[in-house]
Amino acid sequence: MINKPTLAVVGATGAVGTVMLELLTERDDVWGEIKLIASERSAGKKLMVRGKEVIVQALAPEVFDGVDVAMFDVPDEVSAIWAPIAAERGAIAVDNSGAFRMDPEVPLVVPEVNGEKTKDRPKGIISNPNCTTLSMIVVVGALHKKYGVTELIVSSYQAASGAGQSGIDTLEAQMNKVAGKELGHKAGDVREVVNDFGPFPAPLALNVIPWAGSLREDGYTSEELKVRNESRKILGISDLKVTATCVRVPVITTHSLTVVARFKNPVDVDAARNLLRNSEGVVVVDEPESKKFPTPADVVGTDPTWVGRIRASLDDPNTLTFFVCGDNLRKGAALNTAQIAELIAKEFN
Amino acid sequence: MINKPTLAVVGATGAVGTVMLELLTERDDVWGEIKLIASERSAGKKLMVRGKEVIVQALAPEVFDGVDVAMFDVPDEVSAIWAPIAAERGAIAVDNSGAFRMDPEVPLVVPEVNGEKTKDRPKGIISNPNCTTLSMIVVVGALHKKYGVTELIVSSYQAASGAGQSGIDTLEAQMNKVAGKELGHKAGDVREVVNDFGPFPAPLALNVIPWAGSLREDGYTSEELKVRNESRKILGISDLKVTATCVRVPVITTHSLTVVARFKNPVDVDAARNLLRNSEGVVVVDEPESKKFPTPADVVGTDPTWVGRIRASLDDPNTLTFFVCGDNLRKGAALNTAQIAELIAKEFN
Repeated sequence: MINKPTLAVVGATGAVGTVMLELLTERDDVWGEIKLIASERSAGKKLMVRGKEVIVQALAPEVFDGVDVAMFDVPDEVSAIWAPIAAERGAIAVDNSGAFRMDPEVPLVVPEVNGEKTKDRPKGIISNPNCTTLSMIVVVGALHKKYGVTELIVSSYQAASGAGQSGIDTLEAQMNKVAGKELGHKAGDVREVVNDFGPFPAPLALNVIPWAGSLREDGYTSEELKVRNESRKILGISDLKVTATCVRVPVITTHSLTVVARFKNPVDVDAARNLLRNSEGVVVVDEPESKKFPTPADVVGTDPTWVGRIRASLDDPNTLTFFVCGDNLRKGAALNTAQIAELIAKEFN
Repeated sequence: MINKPTLAVVGATGAVGTVMLELLTERDDVWGEIKLIASERSAGKKLMVRGKEVIVQALAPEVFDGVDVAMFDVPDEVSAIWAPIAAERGAIAVDNSGAFRMDPEVPLVVPEVNGEKTKDRPKGIISNPNCTTLSMIVVVGALHKKYGVTELIVSSYQAASGAGQSGIDTLEAQMNKVAGKELGHKAGDVREVVNDFGPFPAPLALNVIPWAGSLREDGYTSEELKVRNESRKILGISDLKVTATCVRVPVITTHSLTVVARFKNPVDVDAARNLLRNSEGVVVVDEPESKKFPTPADVVGTDPTWVGRIRASLDDPNTLTFFVCGDNLRKGAALNTAQIAELIAKEFN
């Protein structure tokens, strides 16, 4: 590589941005200059990336001049305005917000599943899926290629950091408040002690909350419909049946999901397990006789999607059930964005 | 009532036994003498029930003489031996262990669903279902009566107290250990600080564990097969399709479940919600526009099964999805046992 492309990281100071800087330091150094961009409030801050201090610049049209790839980890409404501006100034925008995911002119990419789609980007924008979809789609995609998926029934165990840094801060503060108090024995006793719910609609410490995102049609949340619509788009199956229930759990980082997946063809559970063992980006931990399976506390901070508890349905030879864990800030956000950006970087070879 | 029947509580000092004594104090006083029975180790202890001090007696055949109803909240192997001894001595045994649940000569009873089955007890033993089954079956049973259920896909969010008092103690100790330490950010960091897993196969604080019970056939756990087999027996549907994945979460008490239920007939979601509003033992909290739904921290210590997030499938008019919460020590154990015992007490009128 002679001319390494210039990268911009927009939203460099957020929860995902912080992980992105770690990833850029750890991964193959395919980038030339790296610009760090954030809101006015964070401009001037100095952050470390690849062992060097970089000064954060405020978001403005000019910062994209000379940028080849711009990764966005910012709220939907910020991406909606600024990703097109970056594209107009000549950068390929890789956007981790929900702003463009369902846009038919914007590919929604998971490199292990549909990496070839990055090339078809008429708007100069490529979308990164939602963290909950990403926490299972590499496993589902690998099985789909062999068996042809027809239906997914998914329940999530979503981490606090899916709601950003304020989600992490809120859960940590709540954990401190409830410690040593013998709560969770009477209705409302946690609620009496924990009064700051942060981004959540109820206490999260010593609790689970069947809600993530905002209310959409038919009583579903935005998060549940993202799992449905994004899975359909990534797998290229417009009539895939998907039922998701998203539940927040008191875990800092790493989403877990139970998945019941039906296929066109019968699935031998041992063959499926072997297929997953040989799939890129997947680690199988599935030794029930020694109680080995993935848990979020053992997966957080790692890159792959971890899968265990792989079982055949007892009622239907075409159905598998399994439990997946994926770090929602890494594969669920920063890592997948970085992987997409690296696919584009190859075009500069 | 002139001759109020004599009750024995076997396992009076355990997590469920403790809740049972509270319930016996709160509920209609249908009992004459109440004997408290536990292991040799707890004999002589004085416990309060109905405002009076009662001395705990050691388990022995003679303690059942003169007892009309004996409630058992003890491990499977203790029930397996002692429930038949109680029955032999003339007591009706109401057993909350797994020892007899699938015995075709022992009814498995949930009063709101199949209370009439208490009368058919050739062995003098009636079984109480597992707490996970009980946390959803009142809701499923009410829907089944109208729509005819054909399939259940269930994921649990099970509380620590489902593993008994040691489950509660373990989670509380772990919560204290992790507080204030910024854990859950790197793989294994929780495991380094939390070294006593108690009855669980992994740390539970800041984590979820896809495991409850012991390994059975085809990779399923005993808990998952209980949900399947007990639901079939209680609902009287021998070929009901059931897929359960049981996951432990860091909640002290109250199991939550996501349920996808398919029926023979199409289900109107508003009609189903109204049916549940009018069902005995069920409370509907389902106002997504104001983010109202049940959570375990708001349900613990209460008697009903709480249900919310009731949605129609977007793919199949015969399928509903919902989220239920039930106190696993009350409806999931002590309360249902007390309700069965009270049905028998009526026979003494």
